[in-house]
Amino acid sequence: MKGKRDSTGFLIKQRAFLKLYLLTSIEKEPWYGLQLLDELKASFKPYGFVPQHSEVYRALHDLTEDGILSRKKVKENGSKYKEVAVYSIADKEEAKAYKKLVKADLDRCEQLLRKALKDNFS
Amino acid sequence: MKGKRDSTGFLIKQRAFLKLYLLTSIEKEPWYGLQLLDELKASFKPYGFVPQHSEVYRALHDLTEDGILSRKKVKENGSKYKEVAVYSIADKEEAKAYKKLVKADLDRCEQLLRKALKDNFS
Repeated sequence: MKGKRDSTGFLIKQRAFLKLYLLTSIEKEPWYGLQLLDELKASFKPYGFVPQHSEVYRALHDLTEDGILSRKKVKENGSKYKEVAVYSIADKEEAKAYKKLVKADLDRCEQLLRKALKDNFS
Repeated sequence: MKGKRDSTGFLIKQRAFLKLYLLTSIEKEPWYGLQLLDELKASFKPYGFVPQHSEVYRALHDLTEDGILSRKKVKENGSKYKEVAVYSIADKEEAKAYKKLVKADLDRCEQLLRKALKDNFS
């Protein structure tokens, strides 16, 4: 959960937040060629959050490096040569454990925000 | 509300969060020599958030630069020579307007966290 910068433990990092969504999405169905990416981005838009593609790629990369996701190349439907990357869950237990960590951090962050609303606006 | 880094609009920045607390605290009573700093830090500790002194100083500096706070030097109680900085609200309307902006962002962040809890854990 630690980034490269020293953390003061403020709010959850964007990377961890995206990894959580990627795991939940890929648990439901494997990702073929990032076709779900725009859907994911659209769902955050009403909240003013527009993640960069590069940040999503890095999150996928991290999860693959850590052995939680696996990535393989398959021929794209209807194409003889074009290949797309397919991401699927490689280690269900690790995926579950990681999600549990992120949940604890989301709960903590929600409490910190509520505290700030209470301390400053009531 | 924008930092120097490009923002993807993820969660509120630590600087804005600290500025909010500083304004609320200084609205109640002027800050003499940062004596309230440790109290502020202690209140975040149960939430795993330990802001650096340097970050609090930068927040005070920003608010002073923006004309929302004023800073003056006064003789410390009981001391003939030692001076401490006193921070007080210089522009009540601006302070109020800034807090309103931060409140909107806190509300947005709380909704984004709730969405993540719902989307991934229900």
